[in-house]
Formats: sequence, structure tokens, C-alpha cells
Amino acid sequence: ADVSSRLNPTDYVGFTFFVGGMAMMAASAFFFLSLSQFDRKWRTSILVSGLITFIAAVHYFYMRDYWFANAESPTFFRYVDWLLTVPLMCVEFYLILKVAGAKPSLMWKLIFASVVMLVTGYFGEAVFTDQAALWGGISGVAYFYIVYEIWFGGAKKLAVAAGEDILRAHKILCWFVLVGWAIYPLGYMLGTDGWYTSFLGTGSVDVVYNIADAINKIGFGLVIYALAVKKQNVLV
Amino acid sequence: ADVSSRLNPTDYVGFTFFVGGMAMMAASAFFFLSLSQFDRKWRTSILVSGLITFIAAVHYFYMRDYWFANAESPTFFRYVDWLLTVPLMCVEFYLILKVAGAKPSLMWKLIFASVVMLVTGYFGEAVFTDQAALWGGISGVAYFYIVYEIWFGGAKKLAVAAGEDILRAHKILCWFVLVGWAIYPLGYMLGTDGWYTSFLGTGSVDVVYNIADAINKIGFGLVIYALAVKKQNVLV
Ligand SMILES: CC1=C(/C=C/C(C)=C/C=C/C(C)=C/C=O)C(C)(C)CCC1
Ligand SMILES: CC1=C(/C=C/C(C)=C/C=C/C(C)=C/C=O)C(C)(C)CCC1
Repeated sequence: ADVSSRLNPTDYVGFTFFVGGMAMMAASAFFFLSLSQFDRKWRTSILVSGLITFIAAVHYFYMRDYWFANAESPTFFRYVDWLLTVPLMCVEFYLILKVAGAKPSLMWKLIFASVVMLVTGYFGEAVFTDQAALWGGISGVAYFYIVYEIWFGGAKKLAVAAGEDILRAHKILCWFVLVGWAIYPLGYMLGTDGWYTSFLGTGSVDVVYNIADAINKIGFGLVIYALAVKKQNVLV
Repeated sequence: ADVSSRLNPTDYVGFTFFVGGMAMMAASAFFFLSLSQFDRKWRTSILVSGLITFIAAVHYFYMRDYWFANAESPTFFRYVDWLLTVPLMCVEFYLILKVAGAKPSLMWKLIFASVVMLVTGYFGEAVFTDQAALWGGISGVAYFYIVYEIWFGGAKKLAVAAGEDILRAHKILCWFVLVGWAIYPLGYMLGTDGWYTSFLGTGSVDVVYNIADAINKIGFGLVIYALAVKKQNVLV
């Protein structure tokens, strides 16, 4: 079933895959083509924002085809995508805090925690589905470690030292991680069986994940874009 | 049925899909490659013009294939395209009025109305086709709200404050929305059943939508291009 075979107009899951992929594609074009608008200092951050949406765009095309062909969640592709894009988001935190002297070790700590979060999440969602709640719990611990580190740990201290504009952007990104990222465990609980199933029920993981991705990948990139614009007083 | 299978030379709908897609592709190349000709201040607007035609170009390739494979309107792809490009047009209104102090809330109001217009239109055209006239009516209310806001509401006041050149461009864009966009509900009425069917008859929605898209997406972008040229006295 490729995309030109008949579509069901009420396949809303397929709809979010399609619109999500196109939005990621457009966002990548936006970040990449706006690179020349920025001073060198800011280009790497904008470039990484573009990489995140670009990686997602390609995965969305695969996920969409997988969905249309099998009417089944493309969990495999989903986690491949996250395994690349979430560490890149950790790199973004490091990049904007570099002016205040952030060390690579901060970046590696965050990346390590994000890989633990994703590998254990994959085990619960795709491999040891009988123990989804257990693996999800371990994944959640790694998630809260990231939240702690950026809200109260070393990253927070650097953000305070970096001055007003960067602190404000850092705070918005912190809210993305606390609220925007929290949508994913919710999707996970809708899609797996555990103690939570009795009151949460079950639902389409993919619609939830697709909405969360649009917010977190494109929104996150736009916060960094806005910071760069502000810092160099470019009028856009 | 891919594009290299035999074509029917009198398949005018297919012809407009093909020529429309190519025109969108060329327009994107034009906007993207002219970016470096403009000061930073204007680049974002030109970039967004290019994104609109680029998103459309990709969707036109899908729509064309879908049409050739199924000889059926690719309503699904059509609305995915609009759901991304129409909000971006609202962003354009905001961007050119920013010099006069436009606030993001203006942009969000327009975007929200455009999403309501499109989601209800999709329901009428693809999901609840028995009640096409009803859903089309609701969609029309949202459409008129947009028309009102830019012709007489807050956006108009800002355009007056922004000075002669911007006011002139704003007015042209207002005419696009009033006349160019009005072609779409006409196409909708040709393609669905309602009180209007008795005197309008039925016809090919796609030819109408494709012509409207070429006018509105490429034309709209060119108005902004011309404004940017004028404002910075670039000789092109
Ligand atoms: C806590 C938790 C999870 C968290 C996932 C997150 C936080 C994913 C973030 C993805 C992003 C930000 C992608 C965008 O690029 C899982 C793995 C669902 C498993 C259940 C527990
Ligand atoms: C009022 C109305 C409609 C309006 C559609 C419009 C105004 C679409 C504009 C699309 C554009 C401008 C695309 C170009 O990028 C619908 C949905 C057909 C449903 C019937 C009522």
C-alpha cells in the first residue's frame, strides 16, 4: 500500500503522520535557509535545530508508509528517530550555555540519560511488553534525572550566569522538557498494559506521539531561533 | 499507475495537477534563490513565501499521482497542504505588519480562524458529506472572520500606521483573500451536494482548486517579493 492507493478520509492517525512529516520538512527548509541570516556564533544552534526536524521528516515518511501498509504503530522507526533527535536536543542545551562556560561533560551526562530513557522505553514498548510498566518506570527515572539537571542542577547555574536573554530561553526549553516531553510517557501508557490501564484506558499512541513531536521538535527549534534573533538584534 | 504509464491527452484535471506542481516547484526555486538579494529584515518574509510554494509543490506531486492512480479527488492531501500553507499566509500578514508593532496575538487569531475554516471544510468535503452545506457554512463564517479582521479590524489599523508602501501591499493581499480565496468555496459547492447544487450544477473541484492555488500561492508570494524590492530599493 503506497501513498497513491486509496486513502480512507477518516484515518486520522495517517493524517497526523502525513501532516507531521510535511511540517518537519518545511521546518527543516526554514532553519537551513535562514542560516545565512545569523552570525557565525549562532549558526551551529540553528543548524542543529534544522537537523532535528530533518531527521524527523525522513522518519515520518517511513512511519507514514509503514502505517498505511500495516495499520500498526511504527515503533521501530519511532525509536530510531528519537535515539538521534533527543541527544541532539541535549546538544542544544549545551550550545546555548557555552557562553557561560558549559563543559562537554554536561552534554554527555544529558545524552547518556536520554539514551537510557529511550532504550528502556523501547524494551517496554516493543520487546518485553509484558513488563511495560517496569521498563517505563526505569525510563521515567532517567527522564526525571534530565528534568532535575536542567531545572536545578549544573545547567541551571550556568543559565543564571549567562545573563537575561539566555536564561529566559533556557527556562522556556526547561518547560518544553517538563510539559512537552511528558506527553510521551502519556502516549506510552495509552499504548501498553500496566497498573495505569484501568483508569487511562487505551488509545492511539501514534496520534499522541505525533502531536508531541510537532510541539517539541519544531517548537524547541523556534525558541532557539528566537533567541538567536534577539541576541544579535537582527530584525526579522 | 505512475506517471510514465500512458496518459490521456484530454485529462485536463491531470494536466492542471502536473502544470500546477511544476509551477510551485519553480516558484520555490525563485523565492529561495533570491533570498541573498535581500536585507536580513526582508528575508524571513521571502523565505516563508518560498515555504508556501515548496510545501505545495510536494503535495502536488502526491496529488497528481493519486489522481492518475484513482481518478478521484485527492481531498486528503489537499487539506493537509492547506492546513500548513494557509496558516503560513497568516504569518505573512503578521510579518509585514511587524514594523508597525503587530503583536503575535494577531497572528494567532488569524491562524486559529484558518484552522477552524479548514477542519470544518474537511468534514463537509470528506467525512460528513451528507451535511456538506452545513459544514461549508461554518467554514464560511471563519473565512469571513479572517476577511473582516484584515479588511477592517486590527490588521487594517496597523497597515495604515505602517506607511504607504506596506499599506498598498496589505491592500493587495486583502484583495487576494476576498477574491482569490473565494474561488475555493465555489469549488467546494461544485463538488458537494447542497441547496446550491440546483443552480450551480456539479463540476471538477480539482481544476478549480488548482487554478485558485496557483493564483493565491504564487501571486501572494510575488506581492511580498515586490514589496521587499520596493522597500529596499534593490534593482532586480
Ligand atoms: C519517560 C518515558 C518515555 C519518554 C520519552 C520521551 C521524553 C521522549 C522524547 C522524545 C522527543 C523529545 C522527541 C523529539 O525530538 C518513553 C520512552 C515514552 C517510555 C515511557 C517513559
Ligand atoms: C470558505 C470555505 C472554504 C474555504 C477555503 C479556503 C479559503 C481555502 C484557502 C486555501 C488557500 C489560500 C490555499 C493556498 O495556499 C472551504 C474549506 C473550501 C470549505 C467551504 C467554505
